[in-house]
Amino acid sequence: MGRWEPDARGRLGQAALELFAERGFDQTTAAEIAKRAGVTERTFFRHFADKREVLFSGSQMLHDFIVGAVTDAPPAVPPIEAVAEAVAAAGGHMQERRELVAQRQAVVEANPELRERELAKLSFLAAGLTDALRGRGVPDPAARLTAEAGMAVFRVAFETWIKDPVGNDLPQVVRASFAELRAVTSGQ
Amino acid sequence: MGRWEPDARGRLGQAALELFAERGFDQTTAAEIAKRAGVTERTFFRHFADKREVLFSGSQMLHDFIVGAVTDAPPAVPPIEAVAEAVAAAGGHMQERRELVAQRQAVVEANPELRERELAKLSFLAAGLTDALRGRGVPDPAARLTAEAGMAVFRVAFETWIKDPVGNDLPQVVRASFAELRAVTSGQ
Repeated sequence: MGRWEPDARGRLGQAALELFAERGFDQTTAAEIAKRAGVTERTFFRHFADKREVLFSGSQMLHDFIVGAVTDAPPAVPPIEAVAEAVAAAGGHMQERRELVAQRQAVVEANPELRERELAKLSFLAAGLTDALRGRGVPDPAARLTAEAGMAVFRVAFETWIKDPVGNDLPQVVRASFAELRAVTSGQ
Repeated sequence: MGRWEPDARGRLGQAALELFAERGFDQTTAAEIAKRAGVTERTFFRHFADKREVLFSGSQMLHDFIVGAVTDAPPAVPPIEAVAEAVAAAGGHMQERRELVAQRQAVVEANPELRERELAKLSFLAAGLTDALRGRGVPDPAARLTAEAGMAVFRVAFETWIKDPVGNDLPQVVRASFAELRAVTSGQ
C-alpha cells in the first residue's frame, strides 16, 4: 500500500468483522486482518493494540460521547432528560452505522470472553455517567440511579433495535424506552 | 476429620475468604483452603468445582431466590412491586450475613477477572428476572425494562449498604432506592 493508506482504520475494522464472522474471533490473527484490509501488520498495530481492540475502540468513543453530552447539557435540563438525550444522540450515531454495529454485535455475542468484556465496558460507562451527573450537582444516590436507569434503557433499546429486521430508528426506540421505564417504575 | 464434617461447606467458605484477603485470590489454592478449614482437599471438591466457585455459588442461590419470589408473587401484585419485594427479601438474607458478604465483596473488587465474572452473573440474573416477568404475562419491552430497573436498584442499594459503616438495613435501602428510581425517572 505504500505510506498513503486512506481510511486504513475503517478498512481494518471491516476486514476484522468479516474474518471474525467467517472463522470466529479466536481463529483470526491480526496478520490476517491486515492482509484482508490490504495493509501491513505494522499498520494494524499503529491503529489497534490487538484484535480485541478492533471491537472495543468504539466503546471508549461511546463513553466519551455520552459523558460529554451529559456534561454539556444546559444546567436547566433535568438529569434524566440530559441522560435520555445523550443516549438518544449516541443512538443516532449507531443508527448511521447499523450494519457494522450488527456485525460487531454478532461477533461479541458468539464469544463468552467478549460478552464479559462488553459488560465491563458498559459498567465503565455507567460509572462515567454517574460522575458526569455528580458534576452537574446531582447528589447520590440519585446520580447513580439516574445513570443506571439510562444504562437500562440503553441496553433494552439497543437489543430491541438490533433484533428488529425492519430497522427501527434507534433514537426513537431510546425515547420510547425511557417513557416505558417511567411507566413501569410508577407501577402503571 | 473423618467422614463427619459438620458445616464443612460453611467452614470452607470462611477459610477461603480469609485466605483470599490475606494472600489474594490468585495466590490461594484449593488445597490451602481445605487445610485452613480442617478438611481434606477431596472434601473441598465435593462442595465446590474450584476456588472461584466458593465466591459465586451464592450468585446462583440469589438468582433462584429472586426469580422464585417474582414467579410466586400473587397475580394481582404489579410487576415492579413483585420485583421490589423479591429484591428486598433477598437483601434481608444478605443483611443476616453482612460480614461475609462484605468480605466477599472486597475480594471480588480487588480482582478484575472476578469483577467481570460478577457482572456476568448479574446479567444472568437480569435475564432470569425478565423471563419470570414474562411468565407473569408482562409483555416486552416492559418485562425487560422492569427487570433492568430492579437490577439497577439492586446494584445501587447494595453499593450504598456495603459502603455504609453504620450498617443500614439492606431491605430498607432497597425500598428507598426503588422510591428514588421512581422519582428520578419521572424527572422530579
